[in-house]
Amino acid sequence: MYCLLKLAPLFLALAVCHGWLFDNFVEKQTELDEIALWPLPQKFQSSDAAFKLSHASFQIVHSKQSSAGPSCSLLENAFRRYFEYIFGDMKKHEKSRKKMYDSDLAELQVWITSADPECDGYPSLRTDESYELSVDQPSAVLKAANVWGALRGLETFSQLVYEDDYGVNNINKTEISDFPRFAHRGILLDSSRHFLPLKVILANLGAYHPFTHVYTPSDVKMVIEFARMRGIRVIPEFDTPGHTQSWGNGMKDLLTPCYSGSSPSGSFGPVNPILNSSYDFMTQFFKEISTVFPDAYIHLGGDEVDFSCWKSNPDVQKFMAEQGFGTDYSKLESFYIQKLLDIVASTNKGYMVWQEVFDNGVKLNADTVVEVWMGNKMEEELQNVTGAGFTTILSAPWYLDYISYGQDWQRYYKVEPLNFPGFEGTDAQKKLVIGGEACLWGEYVDATNLSPRLWPRASAVAERLWSDKNVTDVGKAYTRLVQHRCRMVKRGIPAEPLFVGHCRQEYKGL
Amino acid sequence: MYCLLKLAPLFLALAVCHGWLFDNFVEKQTELDEIALWPLPQKFQSSDAAFKLSHASFQIVHSKQSSAGPSCSLLENAFRRYFEYIFGDMKKHEKSRKKMYDSDLAELQVWITSADPECDGYPSLRTDESYELSVDQPSAVLKAANVWGALRGLETFSQLVYEDDYGVNNINKTEISDFPRFAHRGILLDSSRHFLPLKVILANLGAYHPFTHVYTPSDVKMVIEFARMRGIRVIPEFDTPGHTQSWGNGMKDLLTPCYSGSSPSGSFGPVNPILNSSYDFMTQFFKEISTVFPDAYIHLGGDEVDFSCWKSNPDVQKFMAEQGFGTDYSKLESFYIQKLLDIVASTNKGYMVWQEVFDNGVKLNADTVVEVWMGNKMEEELQNVTGAGFTTILSAPWYLDYISYGQDWQRYYKVEPLNFPGFEGTDAQKKLVIGGEACLWGEYVDATNLSPRLWPRASAVAERLWSDKNVTDVGKAYTRLVQHRCRMVKRGIPAEPLFVGHCRQEYKGL
Repeated sequence: MYCLLKLAPLFLALAVCHGWLFDNFVEKQTELDEIALWPLPQKFQSSDAAFKLSHASFQIVHSKQSSAGPSCSLLENAFRRYFEYIFGDMKKHEKSRKKMYDSDLAELQVWITSADPECDGYPSLRTDESYELSVDQPSAVLKAANVWGALRGLETFSQLVYEDDYGVNNINKTEISDFPRFAHRGILLDSSRHFLPLKVILANLGAYHPFTHVYTPSDVKMVIEFARMRGIRVIPEFDTPGHTQSWGNGMKDLLTPCYSGSSPSGSFGPVNPILNSSYDFMTQFFKEISTVFPDAYIHLGGDEVDFSCWKSNPDVQKFMAEQGFGTDYSKLESFYIQKLLDIVASTNKGYMVWQEVFDNGVKLNADTVVEVWMGNKMEEELQNVTGAGFTTILSAPWYLDYISYGQDWQRYYKVEPLNFPGFEGTDAQKKLVIGGEACLWGEYVDATNLSPRLWPRASAVAERLWSDKNVTDVGKAYTRLVQHRCRMVKRGIPAEPLFVGHCRQEYKGL
Repeated sequence: MYCLLKLAPLFLALAVCHGWLFDNFVEKQTELDEIALWPLPQKFQSSDAAFKLSHASFQIVHSKQSSAGPSCSLLENAFRRYFEYIFGDMKKHEKSRKKMYDSDLAELQVWITSADPECDGYPSLRTDESYELSVDQPSAVLKAANVWGALRGLETFSQLVYEDDYGVNNINKTEISDFPRFAHRGILLDSSRHFLPLKVILANLGAYHPFTHVYTPSDVKMVIEFARMRGIRVIPEFDTPGHTQSWGNGMKDLLTPCYSGSSPSGSFGPVNPILNSSYDFMTQFFKEISTVFPDAYIHLGGDEVDFSCWKSNPDVQKFMAEQGFGTDYSKLESFYIQKLLDIVASTNKGYMVWQEVFDNGVKLNADTVVEVWMGNKMEEELQNVTGAGFTTILSAPWYLDYISYGQDWQRYYKVEPLNFPGFEGTDAQKKLVIGGEACLWGEYVDATNLSPRLWPRASAVAERLWSDKNVTDVGKAYTRLVQHRCRMVKRGIPAEPLFVGHCRQEYKGL
């Protein structure tokens, strides 16, 4: 399950922060670069005063005032995980030193401030992910409204720790106040072009082989829980009516039979939108899906519907005439999607759709999230979608499956989601851009190459979606990202190199 | 050490085959595709008659007439390795069935025909790698002049075995007679831009860190022996006088001090060609190298020498005047290379150089191998190099570090090394093209992403350099290569997918 871990730096989830503690922060860029935080926190102050962390005595603990305690297994797991990131996998019996020294940092106290820490909850688009971190003697204090902010702060705390020339873990006196700029900071993984073994990634219920290439319900549960423990949302996409060839193998009459002249050609097109049985199936299917996936949203796809098969089918032609659609097959597509949206809305889930659904004029619920993926006329699309009052997330500039020689992470990093040339949205419109997604479509990706293709390229997107909009210096980002990718390598993730160089600890996971 | 294993399909070495057994072969392309041999053998005949292989009774053995026996550890190791490829890692105690059935293939007999099987030797440019393989009841027979041909035949035998619908290993009645088209079929790996841990790849003696990032002499020995067991040559490159910045850290005064105006700038350029100490160092260095690496050739580099530092240095300017070089710094470069070649020749090694050394008119030994790496004017360079009577290998079209979206393996596959537009060489010239190399330079490659970036893209080069020049059908190659990459995945190599699809056994090595 270690691959999901890798999503943690990026997948985080929402926050608007209030109540700054530190008004007179001066950002010290030089020190910041040395410590190499990624993504860069919103407010940061540190001094040269350094404390030592001893694996024998340092502890991560619940603070006395915290609403969470030892029964909060999400935090208990996170405490162990980050302790191991900092000190490596040191066995308990190696701990012998009891004495504390004046120069030591004794502990990190984690203080959850709301009455409900959300230990057993799931992160959502409305989650407050802000946190405040104060590192000083004898204790560092991490303060957050809930466990999700605490997870973000634990990651930052672990990144503050560095080894000195003697291999001793040090941390400098530091004050951080942080929150993400965007609520939706996603990674899209594609398990439909290639099967991704559970170890490698997320959940999907399609079948390549009835036993060896299938995700079981318990697999799905495990993925969701693994993600939840790290404050990561899992949003499944079930794309219809196009991109459904494989569904036809399992479900008779679900797909439209294509015709060659006056007789069926033997091949099949999109979901058959003229049969009640198609909608019966979708009702049953999404009812199950809505119970399996706890997130408030389901992605319904709706992209790239090829009309040629519908056009060839005489029954579909007849249906078009009866409905008065003329020869406008996008009306038939909208007819299908409309019914699908009603089905899914009845399960009390919100939905995400690809931009074509909006473009075709389908009537959408007010809380629909429209995903803009087409690179051409992206600015116009953002204008239209937000102008119509819809929430949007952006993936067009972040298709990580497209590879090229060199440092393409810089191109991803330079994207400013609210300030495309030509996107002149009002402030109200810009607020509707709730984030973005790095998409790693699977045509040329499977378990053999997913991790180094995704990391650290997706990290560039992570910082764009978390940090302040003025954090745009590519040279400084390079310095920090080099160290961040070594950090990932140290944690066992085969993140590929940015350029010539080496890590203190190279990848040994082969 | 498993990564070197991956080189086996490509690195093979030389052969001109004589004495065909089977004159009336008809190539049956359809069956061939099903069996998916890669690279495609020169002559192949099979029938529908299938034999079963039982892990409990099937054996790979030395034939009675063979000049090699149980004391040939190279073959003993290869027998075990291929048995495990075919049957998986089945423990001895699982073997119980003694009975042979009529439909079984009982054994593969390996028959080495020359008096010296070369069990303890190294493959070279003059190695005969041909073999003949006959699969029939009760025994298959693999006949080769030496162990190197036997290794190639064992690989082919293992590729002939396929699982039927019951999971039983089958092999069809088959006759194969095979030899490689080119003697040099190489892969270039770069351990200088990124350190490649021993597990990941070849040998190099540079140091990133005095303890953690260094290859020890015993590491180098292990790599060479690991390669030898698989019939793979290891040719180290020590590139001078350019590309030597890191050498300067270890060797005072080795590099040329650059000047800014009339005083040293503090930075350094190529090896200092005007000091005797530089040549003393090279003499000592290459003397050691020549004993460490058993191959007959050493690659001396000689590419991309930047003259600006030499030009800035007043001592170098004075030397130029004394030597009568005027302002032609390529004469100074040649002066250095000339002395270097004499040093290396005195160690009784042959040498390979990048094309610039030839282009600059350095006097070369007749057996020098000139490597053509520049994509522009490649045809002209081939004309010139072979016209001057020098042996050449080609890497220009096969720089695998340049990546792009989609199936770029097809571009590598379509290269015809003897028939570039514009390369009108005579037959004598064409014979001087002894092969090629797939180069994976290390700017953006390290242990995290090397394997999926190299495989199966390098396999396209492998078939171009082994199989007959008429084997050019990309569609048929695709079908076989898809299966070949699944074969690599099954053997634990994270070879990336060619396109949408899946393997029966997915990569689980994470």
